[in-house]
Amino acid sequence: MRLRNKPRAAGEIAANPQYITTTPAEFKGQWQSKFTQNQPLSIEVGSGKGRFIVEMAKANPERNFIGIEIQQSVAIMILEKQLTAQLPNLYLIQADGGELTDFFADDEVAQIYLNFSDPWPKTRHAKRRLTHQLFLKMYQAILQPQGSLQFKTDNRGLFEYSLISFNQFGMQFDDLSLDLHADEAPENIETEYEQRFSQMGHPIYLISAHFE
Amino acid sequence: MRLRNKPRAAGEIAANPQYITTTPAEFKGQWQSKFTQNQPLSIEVGSGKGRFIVEMAKANPERNFIGIEIQQSVAIMILEKQLTAQLPNLYLIQADGGELTDFFADDEVAQIYLNFSDPWPKTRHAKRRLTHQLFLKMYQAILQPQGSLQFKTDNRGLFEYSLISFNQFGMQFDDLSLDLHADEAPENIETEYEQRFSQMGHPIYLISAHFE
Repeated sequence: MRLRNKPRAAGEIAANPQYITTTPAEFKGQWQSKFTQNQPLSIEVGSGKGRFIVEMAKANPERNFIGIEIQQSVAIMILEKQLTAQLPNLYLIQADGGELTDFFADDEVAQIYLNFSDPWPKTRHAKRRLTHQLFLKMYQAILQPQGSLQFKTDNRGLFEYSLISFNQFGMQFDDLSLDLHADEAPENIETEYEQRFSQMGHPIYLISAHFE
Repeated sequence: MRLRNKPRAAGEIAANPQYITTTPAEFKGQWQSKFTQNQPLSIEVGSGKGRFIVEMAKANPERNFIGIEIQQSVAIMILEKQLTAQLPNLYLIQADGGELTDFFADDEVAQIYLNFSDPWPKTRHAKRRLTHQLFLKMYQAILQPQGSLQFKTDNRGLFEYSLISFNQFGMQFDDLSLDLHADEAPENIETEYEQRFSQMGHPIYLISAHFE
């Protein structure tokens, strides 16, 4: 990551509170105040370099978006995209997505996106997977009734695990692809990782589901 | 199929009632009488040439197996395998698997296998897919509590459809593979179709699930 260990990252984040915060618990239940318009709120947990959330915000001006990224050196790359784009419906959080219920009130979120999350392949690390039931409980709490969770990954083991995890948690499947790029999916916005990976010819998996 | 339209097929089936029947409704609730031992009963809907059900019966003498195949010209090929093997825990039905609740009593079956079922890709034919909810209702009726349904296919569209269908019907996922032959699955018994297809390098999908 080009900005790793560069001291100006913290300064740049602190200088742009209109676009990013490192203390999201302060805004719990009040996220709509960050945006020009009161609109359904979508969040991405683990935004990486931010291509997905930025392009989603551009393509869907009738919705508000928050990208969450734990790493400062990566979050700064999303901020720089937003400093250029200045989208009125995009806000950023640099913090640990594992504490979502501290950041968002019950029913505050309409949609959650997980893209190419860390697979944590070892069984003893299963609780760290963002599709483990510990996380599903948090998503369920902050999502509105019928709010949806969409998950994309290229990792077969993580996707197999996640389908079982969602099912056993009682989630209802709405959409599913075992080779997203082979389907006609013109509305799909690719992450940076997805763009690189899909060129290798491996399938991208997708599921969209909601809680009962 | 080498025996298609050969008149001796019907005669060979009629001559071996100890191994095969074309009138399964007569034995509803009494299938255990067909076997040497009273043991948990597994059935395969759509047995094709029969490699799977014959090898399963060989490998699992502590279970009873019934293979169901609608086509006479194909069912005869399973019968010929059984005439050679003479397995005491294998019986065959040549009839339409779409009428399972006429053939089996409630809770008579411990496991159901579906292997490489016809994908019926057109939406207007969805009701013919063996994983459509119309079939799931029948499976649920004849399966014992905690009885399982295992489904293998190479057809991506059918597998995507089936995962959603199982989930929306309220089935609980127990096991799932998106590339069965890449996993360590020494107990997997391949069908004739699977043997040919897997050599082409395409993934074989598997799910095992049960009704609540």
